Amino acid sequence: MSEKVRRNPTGAAVLRPQVTSAISAAVLDELAEQGYGRLSMEAVAKRAGTGKSSLYRRWPSKQEMVIAALAEFSVPMGEVPDTGSFAGDLRATLEAVHAWLAHPRFSPILPDLSAEAGRNPALAQAIHTAVGEPRRELGAATLLRAIERGELPTDTDLELALDLIAAPLYWRMNVRRVDLGPGYLDGLVAHLLRALEARPAPERP
Amino acid sequence: MSEKVRRNPTGAAVLRPQVTSAISAAVLDELAEQGYGRLSMEAVAKRAGTGKSSLYRRWPSKQEMVIAALAEFSVPMGEVPDTGSFAGDLRATLEAVHAWLAHPRFSPILPDLSAEAGRNPALAQAIHTAVGEPRRELGAATLLRAIERGELPTDTDLELALDLIAAPLYWRMNVRRVDLGPGYLDGLVAHLLRALEARPAPERP
Repeated sequence: MSEKVRRNPTGAAVLRPQVTSAISAAVLDELAEQGYGRLSMEAVAKRAGTGKSSLYRRWPSKQEMVIAALAEFSVPMGEVPDTGSFAGDLRATLEAVHAWLAHPRFSPILPDLSAEAGRNPALAQAIHTAVGEPRRELGAATLLRAIERGELPTDTDLELALDLIAAPLYWRMNVRRVDLGPGYLDGLVAHLLRALEARPAPERP
Repeated sequence: MSEKVRRNPTGAAVLRPQVTSAISAAVLDELAEQGYGRLSMEAVAKRAGTGKSSLYRRWPSKQEMVIAALAEFSVPMGEVPDTGSFAGDLRATLEAVHAWLAHPRFSPILPDLSAEAGRNPALAQAIHTAVGEPRRELGAATLLRAIERGELPTDTDLELALDLIAAPLYWRMNVRRVDLGPGYLDGLVAHLLRALEARPAPERP
């Protein structure tokens, strides 16, 4: 099935959003099954029910296509609600990291890309810019809100705090490959609150 | 160069340790360059200056050969001296984890194996048993020593503590691929001491 390219009044091609979504889904599924190294534009086009020209109309290369699909999936999963307290926000953040890493469509992808990134500095940089940094900005917003509320010290080391929040789940789920076990997230929240010197927000007059 | 197989008085073949060392070094170099999936017994034998029969005399399969080389390299690097205090032992542990992950021969290997382990549960289990668990036992010994000294609570969650100690360096070095930066290890030590409710050892009478 080939995509009909319509032209809008300015003459630029109109890219149908349903086709873009089908391609993004196909990219994630091919990444999960084949890994980055073996992923081909042909296989993605076939899986998405479109032609290779639909892919190249959107992205100039495999790397750009992969990064776009990855960011579209991963960045919204880093959004957490304002629960009203840092303890609540931290718990929600850990649950969001867990849901991201455990997602059936996504779980094999990050270990594979992290190995590939070790051999391919341009890919590492692109993932950092399009996925890592936006997700960290979302995490930093939670920490800044807690500083604003008086729940975290004003000199909180955001860089280290964000590593401490994300790292244990990745290590356990994707490197050690051990189940979290009951109470793991509760214990992690308690340890992180102490590590970050969190305290309840002072009562407002 | 083929290995001369001598027989000892019981009739069992004598395996020359220098050949075993050369093979182990070749396994790590091939793993780093080719990854687990593309590593071949032929290439390891050639690199070690021996024949394939020398490999099969020692290990029945590629997986067992790789696990042996990995454990031989990784487990001794998890040993840390008793510095006399938990803060000192923790700092030494983080430095040992850093040295392990940053080792030029080893740094590409763990991300690759962790991706491979996601597709190969038998490999994941073998790494866990031969590398992960022995390294964690070494880490646990440090924590138990601190409990014994009165520096950590007796109900310390060893499982979570060990994750918190190893994870941030892996996440930063092998997933985010960002330099630690000056003061990172100092900051990490301070955060972990608080997370684990460490206190100075009570003075002994």
